[in-house]
Amino acid sequence: MSEPRWLTSGEAEVWTRYRLLRRELQQAQDQQLQQDSGLSAADYALLAPLSESSDGVMRARDLGNEVGWERSRLSHQISRMEKRGLVVREACADDARGSMVRLTEHGRSVIKAAAPGHAETVKRLFFDPLTPAEAELLGHIIEKILGAIRSGAGEGFGQ
Amino acid sequence: MSEPRWLTSGEAEVWTRYRLLRRELQQAQDQQLQQDSGLSAADYALLAPLSESSDGVMRARDLGNEVGWERSRLSHQISRMEKRGLVVREACADDARGSMVRLTEHGRSVIKAAAPGHAETVKRLFFDPLTPAEAELLGHIIEKILGAIRSGAGEGFGQ
Repeated sequence: MSEPRWLTSGEAEVWTRYRLLRRELQQAQDQQLQQDSGLSAADYALLAPLSESSDGVMRARDLGNEVGWERSRLSHQISRMEKRGLVVREACADDARGSMVRLTEHGRSVIKAAAPGHAETVKRLFFDPLTPAEAELLGHIIEKILGAIRSGAGEGFGQ
Repeated sequence: MSEPRWLTSGEAEVWTRYRLLRRELQQAQDQQLQQDSGLSAADYALLAPLSESSDGVMRARDLGNEVGWERSRLSHQISRMEKRGLVVREACADDARGSMVRLTEHGRSVIKAAAPGHAETVKRLFFDPLTPAEAELLGHIIEKILGAIRSGAGEGFGQ
């Protein structure tokens, strides 16, 4: 790096707000889920894609990619959920080393009961304060940032 | 809740992008920090406010509030950083039960060396893709969402 590029005061302000949003929205969602459904954010993160998959079953590897977790974190979380009867592990028919994760009937009823409160919270906290034009613009702005992250993923950082 | 309010397809798209942004930006920042400075995101989260405080010392409680962590997570992280010589714990003069966290000289040189690369990454991934007007608008939009989260903090969720 030749000359360090620092954030302008306006950028620093936006960056601080983004970090606050990330933290406070997550806390509000965690609290709602725990209070209304007894689920942690990690429970919900796995139950949601499982409930949308065909037959409620996914390869553990695909589930890990879906949530972006490392193998050990995923494995611990699945074990905790297995003890509570939300999911079961199964052997993978096509791959002796792979394992599958299946939503139980109980898991399906829990996620089905939790989904409306979860959607209501996102609606109320994230979309109700915005006009439809602002929500659309937000989507457009995020897409531009995601594009920069993805195009830079193969490069060295901080160069 | 009378009738569940589901997200429209446009809202669901924006929400998915927001969750991807949160995850992918965090991963890109973690990777840059680790690669260039050998620091984790948790290390940086504590070193940054300490380095900006007067004399590089803060009450553990204030530091916890700054980063939004629970006491046990904070305590474990401070212990890890203490072992690596980045911070030291000290007794609090005013409060026998409280403890203070002080940045060491080594900690200060590490955060000083890491800061330009961290700022460059935020600049490159988050601000370079946006026009100044878009960045300002993003700050405005986030402020509206934060307002909704904060005004709802005392209410029951999912009602």
